[in-house]
Amino acid sequence: MNLKEEMLQLGRQARAASRALGALTTQQKNDCLRAMADGLLHQADPIKAANAADLEAGRAAGLSAALLDRLALTDKRIADMAKGLREVAALPDPVGRVLDERVRPNGLRLRKVSVPIGVIVIIYESRPNVTADASGLCLKAGNAVILRGGKEAIHSNRAIAQVMLEAGARAGLPANAVQVVQTTDREAVRELVQMVGLVDLVIPRGGEALIRAVAENARVPVCKHYKGVCHVYVDREADLDMAERIVVNAKCQRPATCNAMETLLVDAAVAEQFLPRIARTLSAMKVELRGDEKTRQLVPTAKPATERDWFNEYLDLIMNVRVVPGVEAAIEHINTYGSNHSDAIVTANQETADKFLRDVDAAAVYHNASTRFTDGGEFGMGAEIGISTDKVGARGPMGLEELTTYKWIGHGSGQLRE
Amino acid sequence: MNLKEEMLQLGRQARAASRALGALTTQQKNDCLRAMADGLLHQADPIKAANAADLEAGRAAGLSAALLDRLALTDKRIADMAKGLREVAALPDPVGRVLDERVRPNGLRLRKVSVPIGVIVIIYESRPNVTADASGLCLKAGNAVILRGGKEAIHSNRAIAQVMLEAGARAGLPANAVQVVQTTDREAVRELVQMVGLVDLVIPRGGEALIRAVAENARVPVCKHYKGVCHVYVDREADLDMAERIVVNAKCQRPATCNAMETLLVDAAVAEQFLPRIARTLSAMKVELRGDEKTRQLVPTAKPATERDWFNEYLDLIMNVRVVPGVEAAIEHINTYGSNHSDAIVTANQETADKFLRDVDAAAVYHNASTRFTDGGEFGMGAEIGISTDKVGARGPMGLEELTTYKWIGHGSGQLRE
Repeated sequence: MNLKEEMLQLGRQARAASRALGALTTQQKNDCLRAMADGLLHQADPIKAANAADLEAGRAAGLSAALLDRLALTDKRIADMAKGLREVAALPDPVGRVLDERVRPNGLRLRKVSVPIGVIVIIYESRPNVTADASGLCLKAGNAVILRGGKEAIHSNRAIAQVMLEAGARAGLPANAVQVVQTTDREAVRELVQMVGLVDLVIPRGGEALIRAVAENARVPVCKHYKGVCHVYVDREADLDMAERIVVNAKCQRPATCNAMETLLVDAAVAEQFLPRIARTLSAMKVELRGDEKTRQLVPTAKPATERDWFNEYLDLIMNVRVVPGVEAAIEHINTYGSNHSDAIVTANQETADKFLRDVDAAAVYHNASTRFTDGGEFGMGAEIGISTDKVGARGPMGLEELTTYKWIGHGSGQLRE
Repeated sequence: MNLKEEMLQLGRQARAASRALGALTTQQKNDCLRAMADGLLHQADPIKAANAADLEAGRAAGLSAALLDRLALTDKRIADMAKGLREVAALPDPVGRVLDERVRPNGLRLRKVSVPIGVIVIIYESRPNVTADASGLCLKAGNAVILRGGKEAIHSNRAIAQVMLEAGARAGLPANAVQVVQTTDREAVRELVQMVGLVDLVIPRGGEALIRAVAENARVPVCKHYKGVCHVYVDREADLDMAERIVVNAKCQRPATCNAMETLLVDAAVAEQFLPRIARTLSAMKVELRGDEKTRQLVPTAKPATERDWFNEYLDLIMNVRVVPGVEAAIEHINTYGSNHSDAIVTANQETADKFLRDVDAAAVYHNASTRFTDGGEFGMGAEIGISTDKVGARGPMGLEELTTYKWIGHGSGQLRE
């Protein structure tokens, strides 16, 4: 069987599984999830053995210590995967929600009801826990999933999936509800993302290069965010103590995340007051500053920011700083250099805030809060499969509801169109 | 300026216009729509003159009478365009709806609010009224629109857009809110649908070939339906009088529409009773029947249906007929050969109906009603820009709400992530 045929077969199997999944009750889905969690706990040994093979191959291939750490599965990490599946089981079923209901003058009752998307492909990198986390979320939303993890984790991913499938099957999980792409050939991704009619949605999780490669080849919808170039704008009417706390939190609390801020915009009216103090605080926290000319006049230790820097997602303790004439220039900067992810304004002026919240084109915008809140858990979604900066389909944090679509159901008594 | 640069400029202008549109109030948008309607009525003469040029070129090029009729603009048709714009002005603003609201334990208030999508490209065929209809809907939803109509209507489309823009501008319509692609070069479409970052959504309106060509080249989201292969399944527990009325309505009321039925599925348990009578009725209405073997035993006048016929959207007085062993086989047939558009079951058994409504994978499913209801007007949306069979983004009839996306707005008082 060649690669194309192999992927088509995965797709056809997933389509059949998605129909079987759609017929499960909430209780049946939750039973499967809990059985899968139990399976992971009871079968930790074969999973760890498979993981040891990946780690050995990784060390032989010279993977960095950071990458090896991400790849490694401990009892604690396996228990966390099981816990994640149980938490998803405890969440409300996202399928069957009535999103709209109307009775037409002819008596036809129309209901807009959430339904599973169908077949979802997840493309990810080295963390094997994604195999369990993504499976759990897709299953609860009634979707069949095809998983394509990094080649360095292939043995771990296969073992996790096998354990989940065997345990799930005993609780009624349909065959092929979760499938791991067995080949590590890169061409497999290209085939998968072109399978119109068999694959309904692709969610790539990883760095910008991975996501661009997926999106450029895709013929099916891709839900994604390329990067998180997030901004905090400190307005002339900001409470500067609050502004300082928000900037420090947004930049430093976990700088390697997509919702960490990369660029600080400061209203010229408060630049003289605010910039030296925030620079001192950030410098104590080892943040490297890159500023425009006005910033560098007030903060001589800042390096000059290049045009390219404004577009940059550092994911590190580096931050751009720019002095702007006011809120309109801040909005203009964000809409030009930003990534439509998460941006915040600090101001006591409601009108200024409203303008910013309306005109900044991003999945999440904040008034007097840190950009770090863009997260399924923080939004109360219970679990997260990713964050989207798309404008069609889900936008912002994606939890269970965002893994569903809808259908219109018409309940009639013989209505005809006149 | 080469073609690519020309399209990029349209995109940049549209992006700037979309920001200006986002800042208009509902009243301002409605004023623009009414001014555009007035403009069409007052400037009917130059529009008709431009249309005459298209008609003359069309006749010279040997266009069919049907095509020339679709192309022709009369005072009545111009008045209808104006009326359409006024109706859109009278509809509720789809922007600013609060779709979800939650206050987190830390006091952060999150609101999920509908916002314009941004820049929309509409690709359509010969009807010049789409130029006004699509512009009105996009404008009301706060989106800038780039219009690419058929080359046979280019003079008409330019004239309509110019009139609307001039009249709109006097009422405060931002420059470039509506732009008509000036070139008729086919490559223009390819460029437009690849303009990631400048174009947020493409809506192709036309036949399957047009839509496939757009979707295959697109790098930006495309909202579409390829075709409408709609089914009616007559169950063993159907009221056969009702079933006959629904089949006749779904097939014959307007056979050239996408929500007209193409295939009748009949439960074997009632085939002997139902098929001869429906065949007589349809034959009197000049419907050609193509049946499977069992159908042809009961209806000897039916031609044999080929495997390809089951996939076919006839848009004509031709109908496939198949006898199936029951609801499960009907669902299987629909999910295999259908186009995920609109499918109906006729039955008095609620359990059978529920199974069909759940398991048929379509944008709209009906119990005891005609498939012909899948339409923005019939759904009470007030106006329609098209119908989608996609699973990501809008599904089913698309009105104003379906021309919006959403953003999450966080209202804080200094909240930090812990």
